[in-house]
Amino acid sequence: MPANTFGELFRVSTFGESHGDAVGAVIDGIPAGIELDFGAIQNQMDRRKPGQSALSTSRNESDIPTFLSGLFEGKTTGAPLAFIIPNKDSRSNDYDALKEVYRPGHADYTFEQKFGIRDHRGGGRSSARTMAPWVCAGAIAQQILSAKGIQINAYVSAVGEIESSVPENLDTNFIDANAVRCPDTVAAEKMEKAILQAKEAGDSLGGVISCFLKGVPAGWGEPQFKKLPAELAHAMFSINAVKGFEIGEGFALSRMKGSEANDAFESADGKIQTRTNRTGGVLGGISSGMPIHFKVGFKPVSTIRINQDSVNREGEAIGFSAEGRHDPCVVPRAVPIVEAMAALVLVDLMMMHQARL
Amino acid sequence: MPANTFGELFRVSTFGESHGDAVGAVIDGIPAGIELDFGAIQNQMDRRKPGQSALSTSRNESDIPTFLSGLFEGKTTGAPLAFIIPNKDSRSNDYDALKEVYRPGHADYTFEQKFGIRDHRGGGRSSARTMAPWVCAGAIAQQILSAKGIQINAYVSAVGEIESSVPENLDTNFIDANAVRCPDTVAAEKMEKAILQAKEAGDSLGGVISCFLKGVPAGWGEPQFKKLPAELAHAMFSINAVKGFEIGEGFALSRMKGSEANDAFESADGKIQTRTNRTGGVLGGISSGMPIHFKVGFKPVSTIRINQDSVNREGEAIGFSAEGRHDPCVVPRAVPIVEAMAALVLVDLMMMHQARL
Amino acid sequence: MPANTFGELFRVSTFGESHGDAVGAVIDGIPAGIELDFGAIQNQMDRRKPGQSALSTSRNESDIPTFLSGLFEGKTTGAPLAFIIPNKDSRSNDYDALKEVYRPGHADYTFEQKFGIRDHRGGGRSSARTMAPWVCAGAIAQQILSAKGIQINAYVSAVGEIESSVPENLDTNFIDANAVRCPDTVAAEKMEKAILQAKEAGDSLGGVISCFLKGVPAGWGEPQFKKLPAELAHAMFSINAVKGFEIGEGFALSRMKGSEANDAFESADGKIQTRTNRTGGVLGGISSGMPIHFKVGFKPVSTIRINQDSVNREGEAIGFSAEGRHDPCVVPRAVPIVEAMAALVLVDLMMMHQARL
Amino acid sequence: MPANTFGELFRVSTFGESHGDAVGAVIDGIPAGIELDFGAIQNQMDRRKPGQSALSTSRNESDIPTFLSGLFEGKTTGAPLAFIIPNKDSRSNDYDALKEVYRPGHADYTFEQKFGIRDHRGGGRSSARTMAPWVCAGAIAQQILSAKGIQINAYVSAVGEIESSVPENLDTNFIDANAVRCPDTVAAEKMEKAILQAKEAGDSLGGVISCFLKGVPAGWGEPQFKKLPAELAHAMFSINAVKGFEIGEGFALSRMKGSEANDAFESADGKIQTRTNRTGGVLGGISSGMPIHFKVGFKPVSTIRINQDSVNREGEAIGFSAEGRHDPCVVPRAVPIVEAMAALVLVDLMMMHQARL
Repeated sequence: MPANTFGELFRVSTFGESHGDAVGAVIDGIPAGIELDFGAIQNQMDRRKPGQSALSTSRNESDIPTFLSGLFEGKTTGAPLAFIIPNKDSRSNDYDALKEVYRPGHADYTFEQKFGIRDHRGGGRSSARTMAPWVCAGAIAQQILSAKGIQINAYVSAVGEIESSVPENLDTNFIDANAVRCPDTVAAEKMEKAILQAKEAGDSLGGVISCFLKGVPAGWGEPQFKKLPAELAHAMFSINAVKGFEIGEGFALSRMKGSEANDAFESADGKIQTRTNRTGGVLGGISSGMPIHFKVGFKPVSTIRINQDSVNREGEAIGFSAEGRHDPCVVPRAVPIVEAMAALVLVDLMMMHQARL
Repeated sequence: MPANTFGELFRVSTFGESHGDAVGAVIDGIPAGIELDFGAIQNQMDRRKPGQSALSTSRNESDIPTFLSGLFEGKTTGAPLAFIIPNKDSRSNDYDALKEVYRPGHADYTFEQKFGIRDHRGGGRSSARTMAPWVCAGAIAQQILSAKGIQINAYVSAVGEIESSVPENLDTNFIDANAVRCPDTVAAEKMEKAILQAKEAGDSLGGVISCFLKGVPAGWGEPQFKKLPAELAHAMFSINAVKGFEIGEGFALSRMKGSEANDAFESADGKIQTRTNRTGGVLGGISSGMPIHFKVGFKPVSTIRINQDSVNREGEAIGFSAEGRHDPCVVPRAVPIVEAMAALVLVDLMMMHQARL
Repeated sequence: MPANTFGELFRVSTFGESHGDAVGAVIDGIPAGIELDFGAIQNQMDRRKPGQSALSTSRNESDIPTFLSGLFEGKTTGAPLAFIIPNKDSRSNDYDALKEVYRPGHADYTFEQKFGIRDHRGGGRSSARTMAPWVCAGAIAQQILSAKGIQINAYVSAVGEIESSVPENLDTNFIDANAVRCPDTVAAEKMEKAILQAKEAGDSLGGVISCFLKGVPAGWGEPQFKKLPAELAHAMFSINAVKGFEIGEGFALSRMKGSEANDAFESADGKIQTRTNRTGGVLGGISSGMPIHFKVGFKPVSTIRINQDSVNREGEAIGFSAEGRHDPCVVPRAVPIVEAMAALVLVDLMMMHQARL
Repeated sequence: MPANTFGELFRVSTFGESHGDAVGAVIDGIPAGIELDFGAIQNQMDRRKPGQSALSTSRNESDIPTFLSGLFEGKTTGAPLAFIIPNKDSRSNDYDALKEVYRPGHADYTFEQKFGIRDHRGGGRSSARTMAPWVCAGAIAQQILSAKGIQINAYVSAVGEIESSVPENLDTNFIDANAVRCPDTVAAEKMEKAILQAKEAGDSLGGVISCFLKGVPAGWGEPQFKKLPAELAHAMFSINAVKGFEIGEGFALSRMKGSEANDAFESADGKIQTRTNRTGGVLGGISSGMPIHFKVGFKPVSTIRINQDSVNREGEAIGFSAEGRHDPCVVPRAVPIVEAMAALVLVDLMMMHQARL
C-alpha cells in the first residue's frame, strides 16, 4: 500500500509539498455528529507554524486549514473530512541552487534514487512543512479522545546536551511558558541560549521530546502487530529527523535486573494498578491503565550555514552552505507533531478495540 | 484490521499459543518459482529454539515446521504457504497456579482487560513461543533477499551493564561462536557469566541487540508512513520485551550539532556514498545504499524465581514466585527474531518499490 | 495486498490446494468469549462436502475441521482461530494426464501465465475444494450474526433452463428437503432429472442461487467503496464459476421506469419500511432494514466427459476428454458457500459499523 | 477500513458533497515521471459533466480539476496527487423541502439511520456528483494503461426496454456520435426519443452499459479474493444505481451446458487463445489475454416529478414530487464512470502483479 495514509479506521491521507499550492489531508472514518472545536485545532497549528519565535525559521505562514467537505451545520457527517493549508510564503528561488546538489543529511539523494525525479523546492515532499496536516488531523483526534478523558502532553526534555529535570507530576501549563516548550524553566533558559548560539554559529542542535498519555483505559493495543508501543514507534519515526524511541524507561531497562525492572501490582481504591511504572503504561503491547510515557530523539536539523562537503549529480565534489530560512533546532515546533501522531495512534486503536465489542 | 498479520505485500498471518497444539503462519504474496532452502530455515529455527544451551529454558522443542500448502515439486507456486510448528513439550500443569494471579511484567492483566478471557497456560498468545513462526517466515524472506545480495546480521551488543566492543568490520562468523551470540569474545564471556549468575539468583537480565543490513539498494522505504526506520521500529517493538529502538547513532545524534551529525557525501569508484554513516543508512526514511544499522533494547525477562508482590483477580495482595522453566536472559535467542523481522520489513518494502516500476 | 484474505476486521486468510495435505484458514479479529457451535459448523461443511448425493462427485472427504488455536475451554480468546481440513481422498494420479493440457473453461492456462508454474493436481489452488475453509469460517460468522437475529438462507432457483417458482414467504425447511436444494419441489424434481441426464451424457449444467438475508438492521454498508451490494458482489464473484450477480430485481430494474421501480416508504407499527422491496434491502449501498435478497449465476461445470478441442503447452491442437470424478452441476453444493460468503460480508460490515460508534 | 478509498496500490481517496465547496480526491501510489495529458482528462470529465445535452440535468458545472500536489514541471513525482473540482452551480435552496422527507429510491433514510445525521442538500455525499473525481482519477489510470496498449471502451447497450444490436467489431468512434452514447445509431435514436418522453412525463428510465477492455495481458487478477471479475463487480456496484453485473455471457451461461459454454483453446499465429470468448476474457479470475467484456445494469433514476408516496421523519405519510434539476436517464453520463472504474481496477491489479515479479 502506498504510504501517505496513516491509520486504518481513522485514516488520514496526506498530500502536498513545501512549495506547491497547498498541503492538506483527507480524514476518512471520523465518527458522525462531532462538533469540531476550530479554536483548539488552530491552537495546535499555531504551536507548529513557522515564525512563532526567534528560535524558529522566519518563513511566515498563517497555517489556517480550510475545510472542504464532511461538515454540515458545523458537525461531522461521517463523510470524509478534507482540508487544505495554503502555502503562502514560499520562495522557490531560494532553492534554485539546490537543483544540482545533494544536501548532507537531507532526503535529496534518496528521493532522486527512489523516484528518478525530485521537487527540489524547499525539500518538496520531504519538507517538514508536509507535517502541518498531521497536526490538524491530530488535533481532531485529540478532541475525540479528550471527550473520553484522555490527555496528551509532550514537552522538550533535552536540547543538545542540556537535559531538563521534570518533576513527576508535570504541570502542563508550564510547557508553553517558554519558547523552547520545556517546563523546567531553569533548563529552558539554557536551552534557549544554546539554540540561539547554534543559530549564530550557522549550526543546529538536536533534542528529545517526552510525551505522556493519561487516561487511556486498560485494553487498547492489539497483539501481535498493532501493539501500542509498536504503533507509537512507527508514528514517531514517521516524523522527520527522529532517530530514537523509548517506551517507559526504555534502554535503561535493558541494564536492569528483572527484580528491579518489573512493576509490582497493587490494589488502590478497589482498582488494580502497578506500584511503579517503568514499563510506561503497557504490558504485552496493551495499555495497562497506567499513564503511557515515551521519549523521542531528534537529530539536529540538517540544514546549516556552515560549509559542508557534498557532491553534485555528476558526483563531483562541491562545498555547500545553506542560505535559505530554517530552524536551528526543530524540537520546540515538533512538540505538537508528537502529540498529533500520538493522538492518531490512540484514536485508531480505540476504534479497533470498539469494532470487536 | 486485526493485528496478527505482518506486512502488506509479503503478508505473514500468524496463529497459535504456547500450550495449544501448534503455532504457525500463512505467508501470502510470496513470489512463485522459489526453491526453498529448508536447511537454512531450520538453522534459524534452531538458533531460536528453547533448550539450545545452558543459558536458555529447558523446554525441549524440535521446532521443525511442517509445510501444508503453496509448494509443488519443491517450489513455491504463488499460492499461500502455510506451515505449522507443533508444541510438543508443553506442561500446562505448571501453569495452573497462574490462573488467578497477574504476573508482574507480563501481559496477564492486560489480556484479561482487553479480551475478558485469558489462556493462562504459558502465557497463551503472549508467549515468546508465538514468535517461532516469525523466524520461519523471516528465513524465507531472507532467502529472497539473499538472492539480491542482501545480508542481515544481528548480534548481542549488551547484556545488562556489559557492553561489547565490536570492530567496525564485524566478522559475522564470530556471532555464533558462543552461546551469547556476541562476536566480542571477551565481552561474551562476561555476559555468559552474568547470565548464569542471574539464573542462579532466580533473577533475569536484559540486553541490547545490534543489527546490520548490508546490500540494500538506495531507494527502498516509502514516505510518509512507510519509512524504513518506522517500519523497522514497528517490527522490532512487535517483539516481546522490546523497550527501545535506535537507527544509526540514535539518541546520541540528539546530543550532536548538525555540523557533527551530518554525513558528508562523496564519490568513490564512480558511486555516490556518504563518508560516515551516523544516520544508519537512511535519509528521509529511504535507504541510501549505505549499510543500515540499528539497535534494539530488551527489558529483562519478567519471569523470575525471586518473590514479587502482586495481586490476584480479586485484587488481593499475594506474593508470587515463578516456578516454571524460563530463560534468565532472552537476547541470545532473540537474535534470529530480530533478523527475521528485519527481513520481513525489507522484502515488503522491496515489493512495494517494485509495484511502482 | 495479496488476495487470499477476505474481510478487513473479521479477516479470513485461506490456504491449501486440492491435492496437498490440507486446506484451511486463519480467522483473525474474531471477538473473544464466543462458544463455538461445532455441530452447526459441521452441518454447513456436510452440505458442501463431496459425495453427499448422486448429484455430486464421488470423491469422499469427511471435511471435519481441526482447530489449532484461538480457543480456550471451548471459547474464543480473541487470538487467531486457525483450522485445517485434511485432504484424504485425493488421487493425484488421475491428473497426470493434465500436466500438459489446458482444460477449456479451467484456470490451467491463466495460472500458468500468471505464476509461470502450476500445481496441476486437481486444479491445485483453483480447485473448488479450496472453498471448504470458506464454509467453515462462514459458519462461525453466521453464529455471530445469528446471535443478533440475522438469518441467512440460500437455495437453488434455477438449474440450466429450469427455473423454480418460489413463494414469497420461503419456508427454509424445504431447502434441504431434496438433493438439489430447491424449495420448489416440482421444479426440484425436474432439476434433479436434468442433472442426472447431463451426468449420463458426460455434460454439465449451470444454474442460479438466490439468497435472502433477514434481520439485518438499517445502517450497515459503507459509502463509497464498501457498499453492501458491492461487497456482496465481490464475495460472490470470488466463488468459482460465478458469472452474474443481481441485487433486488437486478437487471429487470434497468427495464422499468422510475415510477415503477422506486419502493414507496410507509409506516407500519411505528416503523418506517418500504411497501415493496425491488431494490433488495439496500439504498445508497446501505441496508434499509428490509430483507436483502440477491441472485448469483453460475456457469456450467467446466469439466465434462464429452471430447473438447484444446491445445497443449506447445500450442499443438489436441482433443481432451475429462476422466476424473466431478460434479455434473455445482449449484446444490454451492448453496452453503453462498451463505458463507454472505455471512463473512455481513460480519465485517457489522464490525466496521461498530468501530465508529 | 473506511470506505472512501478505492484501490490498494494505486489508491484513490475521495471526498466532497454535492453542495459543499468542492469534490476531489488524493491519488497515492502513482508512479513517478508520468507527464499527464490534461486534455484527455478533461475530455472524460466533459463526458460526465451535467448540462452536456438535452438528455441530462441542466445543472451547469465546468468540472475542471485543479491539481494541488504531486506534480513538478508537469510530471508526477511519486508524491500524492491531490485535485479538487469546485462546485459552482449548486442551489441548496432547491433542497430545503427535502430536509424532512425520505425520497423513495434514494439514500436519505439509510444515511440517516447509519450516521444519525444527513447533509440533505442535493443528496450530500450520496450524490452522483461525488463520482466526478472518480472520472478524473480513472482518466489518469487510463493514461498509464494506454501506454501499455490497453484500451477501455464502454457504451450504452440498453435504455429501458430498447436494446442495441452492436456488431462484434465495435467502432469506438461511433460511441460519442450521439447523445446517448450508443454506437447502434438506429437504437440510439429510439433511446433518445424514449428518454425525452420519460422526461416529458416526469418519469425516468434505467439502462445497461457494456464495456470492453482490450489489450490486457494474460495473468492479471489475483486468486482467491482479488479475482478480476470480482474486482470489476465491486467497482461497478460502487456506482450509484447499479443493480446487476455480468462478466462475459453472464446469466446466459447459467442456462447453457458445459459443452456449449466452454471456450475451446486454439493456436493462432503462434499464440494460444480461445476460439470463442463466452467467459469474457477471464479464467479462474485471471485475465486470459482475450478481450474482457462485461455488462452493468442501472435502475432508473430515483428522482422523478411524478408524485410518489413516502413518509417524513416522524413516519407520517406524505406525497412527494421532485422539483429540482435531474437526469431522466443516467446511463449516457455513466459511460465515462464505468470506464474510469474499470481503469482503476486494472491499474491496481497491474501493480499488484508487478510487485511479485
